[in-house]
Formats: sequence, structure tokens, C-alpha cells
Amino acid sequence: MLGNKLRLGITGMGYRGLRHLEMIASRMDVQVVAICDVNSGCMANVANFLPCMPKFYDAMQHGHVRMLRDEALDAVLIYTPWEFHLEQASQAMALGVAVGLEVSGSVSEAECWRYVEAFESSGTPIMFLENCCYRRDIMAVYNMVRKGLFGDLVHLRGGYRHDLRAILFGGAPAGEALWRAPHYFKRNGDIYPTHALGPLAKLAGINRGNRMLKVSAMASGSKGLSSFLPHGNDAAMGDVVTTQILCENGETILLTHDTTLPRPFGLELQVQGTKGIWQDFARGGLEKGYIYLENTSADEEKCWQHPEAILRPHDAEVWKRCQTAARFGRYDMDYIMLENFFQCVHTGNPFPIDVYDLAAWKCVTPLSEQSIREGSIAVEVPDFTRGKYKLLQPSPVL
Amino acid sequence: MLGNKLRLGITGMGYRGLRHLEMIASRMDVQVVAICDVNSGCMANVANFLPCMPKFYDAMQHGHVRMLRDEALDAVLIYTPWEFHLEQASQAMALGVAVGLEVSGSVSEAECWRYVEAFESSGTPIMFLENCCYRRDIMAVYNMVRKGLFGDLVHLRGGYRHDLRAILFGGAPAGEALWRAPHYFKRNGDIYPTHALGPLAKLAGINRGNRMLKVSAMASGSKGLSSFLPHGNDAAMGDVVTTQILCENGETILLTHDTTLPRPFGLELQVQGTKGIWQDFARGGLEKGYIYLENTSADEEKCWQHPEAILRPHDAEVWKRCQTAARFGRYDMDYIMLENFFQCVHTGNPFPIDVYDLAAWKCVTPLSEQSIREGSIAVEVPDFTRGKYKLLQPSPVL
Repeated sequence: MLGNKLRLGITGMGYRGLRHLEMIASRMDVQVVAICDVNSGCMANVANFLPCMPKFYDAMQHGHVRMLRDEALDAVLIYTPWEFHLEQASQAMALGVAVGLEVSGSVSEAECWRYVEAFESSGTPIMFLENCCYRRDIMAVYNMVRKGLFGDLVHLRGGYRHDLRAILFGGAPAGEALWRAPHYFKRNGDIYPTHALGPLAKLAGINRGNRMLKVSAMASGSKGLSSFLPHGNDAAMGDVVTTQILCENGETILLTHDTTLPRPFGLELQVQGTKGIWQDFARGGLEKGYIYLENTSADEEKCWQHPEAILRPHDAEVWKRCQTAARFGRYDMDYIMLENFFQCVHTGNPFPIDVYDLAAWKCVTPLSEQSIREGSIAVEVPDFTRGKYKLLQPSPVL
Repeated sequence: MLGNKLRLGITGMGYRGLRHLEMIASRMDVQVVAICDVNSGCMANVANFLPCMPKFYDAMQHGHVRMLRDEALDAVLIYTPWEFHLEQASQAMALGVAVGLEVSGSVSEAECWRYVEAFESSGTPIMFLENCCYRRDIMAVYNMVRKGLFGDLVHLRGGYRHDLRAILFGGAPAGEALWRAPHYFKRNGDIYPTHALGPLAKLAGINRGNRMLKVSAMASGSKGLSSFLPHGNDAAMGDVVTTQILCENGETILLTHDTTLPRPFGLELQVQGTKGIWQDFARGGLEKGYIYLENTSADEEKCWQHPEAILRPHDAEVWKRCQTAARFGRYDMDYIMLENFFQCVHTGNPFPIDVYDLAAWKCVTPLSEQSIREGSIAVEVPDFTRGKYKLLQPSPVL
């Protein structure tokens, strides 16, 4: 700590890292002391936000480990391409530096186990930075579910339905096109499940008294994707991948990965229980979407209701408290998430999205790939908690 | 024929038969000459609509076959409980009477083959009365798909999401509760797939150059359903059943069966191609739902557009012509469907929803049951056309 300020390092200062840096710069309780990237040019962007320049570490010169060793960090945030996540997160945990890790799917079940082992052998906590868990409408619905207003949950669905074609194939020489697009050429599965699965798993109490048992996935042809490739070349990944997940307590979760066709953005969440159903719309918000609750929506025709008046009384405390979040527009949920992250680092309270969540959620990617590869068979989901999920209680936040 | 009037028989004069009788009574080209039911009391209802009373045949006294033999019918419409459909339809086909058959799922793959055999051995046509194929917005979208406005289709979804608890368990001593509810106690699968699958299969050109290859289904627990049973008794059927279907031309179709939880009605259709996406809302209509077409909806944020101005120019001819349909409110699509049915009987043109569609669509029920029974495995879909689907052209209507 620097006085009462946390000493923070950030690895990966691309688009995503910079958006979060902007939010962190507005905090009084965090000092960004070091930045690691492959490109020192990123520091010009950093200077726009920080009055006091952090030290730069060159990622090509083992900068990440040197930063962890030399800077007495309280925490590190990692925003690098997916293939570096496991190594960089494990190095930080081994050195006792708490980790916040940007989201992605995993490349293998084995990789997921290595996160668990890195945590269990070091005791250093890691938080999976699934920002969608902190969306205002989703947190209000989470509170309503906990209060029993939807009854027993039965079915949950959502997906990452986001036209990424310009980002993946827009022709920009650097950025995500460089490292993210190749995943689409070689893999076929839900490579980015957690924006929907994270919130839905939290709602279903996965790893907190419940767990995912099996996965069965199916992929469409890659008609939209392959049109970006030279004629005669087909990409591996289906444009739309759906994944059905069965949970121990009888809920089913349906995921959709849909990023290479023209469409408006949406997670298209649905939360359905024995007493009611909610669904979001477009980019979400308390005033968006539709809800129907038995008895309270007592019309003969059973019509969808506007959600705002129903969700507002269940608004999360952190949202009511953090007015600053509104400054960041579409990234307001990220501000709330980082608030929660730093609060846990300060207090030593456990992260609400921990290594077991990380492993279980990310693992849906390789399991969906396996299911599709073998003809949409059902594949078992490992229990990364090794039975502890039966005893773990839901976090008060999520 | 009676002059230029078709001689029509109707078997099964419950709720559904009576709704259609009301529409048929308004037609100049059809004479309802006979009614068959287990309950002669139904004729009091019939008298409300028909000035000239048809003859009653008692279903318990082989009335259906006697009616087919004695009344020189041009066509028969069948609205009986599901377990009688195959026998009654086969009897009509064998006796050369064209059939219109109310929808349901099938009980077995073998049953589906028997429909095909009854048609192929008799040459008598049968139309599956899937009214949702004739919904105004769906027919407009069908026209747009044929014109290529959605590009190549990639993913289609929809379901029967209709709270049937009052109908199934409302305590009425007769009606659907009597014969439909028991299916829920013994079976677990999508027992009513065609309201969504029918339109989606037509859009995807199933049996008209395309076919379904395999099915993989998953069922939630039966939490909502079992609350209607005496304590300690569990129903077999999951409240929400999802079914993934892979098509030969690379499309995937996702179905949902969701009838025992509180919720507003909706088919929740989505039609997604390489150039755009449409989704319906609630009970549908040209002015409901959302659409996004690439290039025509050229905003940076890719927002959903109101569909009416986009769908209206592609409105189906039959809808523009049949102003009478509007008289029947929610049942307007049924009027359009019956218009199409009688037109085919008059002209001898093939039914746009034929025995191969009937067999393929109904078969999803037993295949989904098998998939769930065996742990969400992928199950092959038979080709009921025995290869003819490669040559069959789409009907001009559907």
C-alpha cells in the first residue's frame, strides 16, 4: 500500500485496459504504479489519464514477472490476449499478488484445472472480471431471485450476440483482429460464453449449492464468417453456436454465441421460474426489457410488463451508492465491478467471482467444442470445487 | 360436390373444431354435411353457426368410418385427441377423402412412417393444419427470405411458450384437461413442436431442397408442473424443453416447449441470415417485433427497427385478398389457412403442408424424447421423402 492507496499493476494496455484505466484514474484509493505491455507507445495513452506516470515494463523482456517481483503490488489487472492469461495469472498468484483477469473462454479443461491449482497452492485470490454480472438490471433481478420473487428457477438463457465482424476483420493492422480472429478459423464452439453464462450461473447459484452437470452444443454453418475469407476457404466456427447446459438442481441454461452476422447487440437474457419471467432488451437497463410475475401482473391475457417500477425497489446497494458510475456511460457496469474488486482487495473479503467460477464458466468453451466435434454429444462438466460447492454460500453481492 | 360446394365432414367438435366451424360457416364454397363426435350435445353449438344442420355420427359407433363411407365427402377435417389422429386420417386417405389434420406431436417415429405409407398407398392428400405457418408477419418474412433479403439463412428459433396450466389442470371436467394432461405425466420431450417448427421448417426449405439431420434435446426439472400434482408425485415432463436441430444446408433450428410456467404467450421466433435478422413479439403481427437488415438499417449502433414499413411491401397475396379474415381476430391466420386448404381441394393443387412435412415435424417429438431419455444424445432424423426432398420445390404459398 501507499498510505491507504492500493499499489496496482496493469498488464495489457490495449483498448480494454485503457477503458478500465480511465475509471481507475478517478479513484482516490488506488495508485497505478506500473504498466506492462508489448508496446511502450501505449504510455502516451496512459498519460492522458494519470497525473503521475507509472513505470513501464516491456512484456517482451519478461516485464510481467519483473513487475510482480519489483513493485510490491497489492493487485494486478490482466487484459492481454487470451493465450497469455493462464501464465500471467498463475505467476501473479504464485507471487502473492491478487489478480483481476479479463474474460474469455478457455482452450482446454486442463487449463481450467491449472487455474484452480494455482489458487489452491498459493492461496492468492483471483477474480474473473465478468462485467455483465454487475449490470444494473441483472443485479436487481439477482436480488429478486434471492427474495424468491421468481419462485424456483427453471430455465435461464442468454448469449453473446454481438456483430464483431468489423473488429475481427475490419482490416485494422493491430488490436483484436490480430489475435482474436485466428480463433475463429481453427475452433468451433462457444469461445466467449461468460457475458451471459456469468450472470446466469450467479442467478442459478452455480458453485454455491448447485453445479453444471453436462453440456450439449450445436453449430450452424459458417456462412457469414467464411464470406470474409478468400474464396474456397471455410472458417471452422459456426456463425451461431448454441449450448444447452443441465444443472444439478434441475435448471437448464441455454447459451448462444453469435458474433459474425449483422445484428443489433444483445445478451438476450431470460430468467424463468415457477412464479415469473424476466427478459432483457438490447444493452439492458432497469427501464428496458420485459417482465411478468404471477399474481402481481394479474391480467387475463398475461401481458409483458415494463420492468422499471418492478425492478427499481430491488436495485443493488452498490448502484445506488456509486453515482460516479454514470460518468462512464456504457461502461458503467465496469466501474461497479472494479469498485467491488478493489473493495475486496482492501478488506480481504473473498471475490464474489472466484477461481471456481472462472474455471467452471471458461470450461464451457472446450466442452462445447468437444460436443460439436463429436456430433453434439452430451459432455460432462467437471466439478472444479471437488464437492465444496455443496457448502459454499452465495456471496451477498452476487 | 353439391353444385360447386365442397362436401365437408368434421370429426371432433370440441373447442378447436367449433372455432374452425365458425369460419367455415361464413364460406359460400363449402357445405358441412356431417359431424362426428363422441358427444351429440356438440350439435347444439353447431346449430349456432349453420342454418342447415349437418348429420351427426356417433364416434363411439364407428361414426367416423360410416361418415366417410356414406357421405361422399370431398374432404374431412379432424380435431380429435391426438391418439386418434393416425387411425382417423388413414381411414380417410384409404377411402379417398382429402384430410385436414389438427396439429400435435407424434408418439413414435413408426407412427410418422405410417402417415407416409397411408398417403403413398392411397394417393389421397393430407394437409397438416399448422395455422402458424399462415400468420401474417411470418408469411411476409417468408416472402422476404425467398427474395434473398436475409441472405443465406443461418439460425432459426422459436417455441411454444404458452402457459397452459389453466387448460391442463384448471379442474374443468372435460375438454383438453382430460386427454392432454396425461401426456405431461408420462412423457418428457417437446410434445408440441410444430407451432414454431412449422414456420421455421418452411423458411429453411425443409423437404424442399433441405432436410433435418439430427436432434439434441434437454429438459429442465418439472418444478412448475409437479406443483399441480399431489405432494410427492413428480410429472415426467420438464417445464422447459429445448431442442437443437441441425439441417443439411447448415442451418440450425432451436425449439422451446414451455407450457407449465406463468408467462405471456409467444412463439419467440427468430430468423437470422447473413444479411439480417427478424424476431417476433407476443402474438405477432406486421407491426410487432423487431428487424435489422444490413445496409438498409445503416446506423452505427445497429439498432432494432420497427418491422411494419419493412414487412408491409412483402405482405402475402392471400392476406391482402381475404379481408374476411379480420373478422376472426386472433384466429385470422386460421381463416387464411382454411382458405388455402379449400382452394387446394377445389383445384387439386398439392397442399403446401403435405404428408412429408407432417411426418418430419411431428417426428421431432419422439426424437426429442429419445434424446432426453438417453442423456441429451444427438438422434438422427429419418428422411421421410426417401431422397425426394432434393428435387421438391418450395410451394408458391409457403
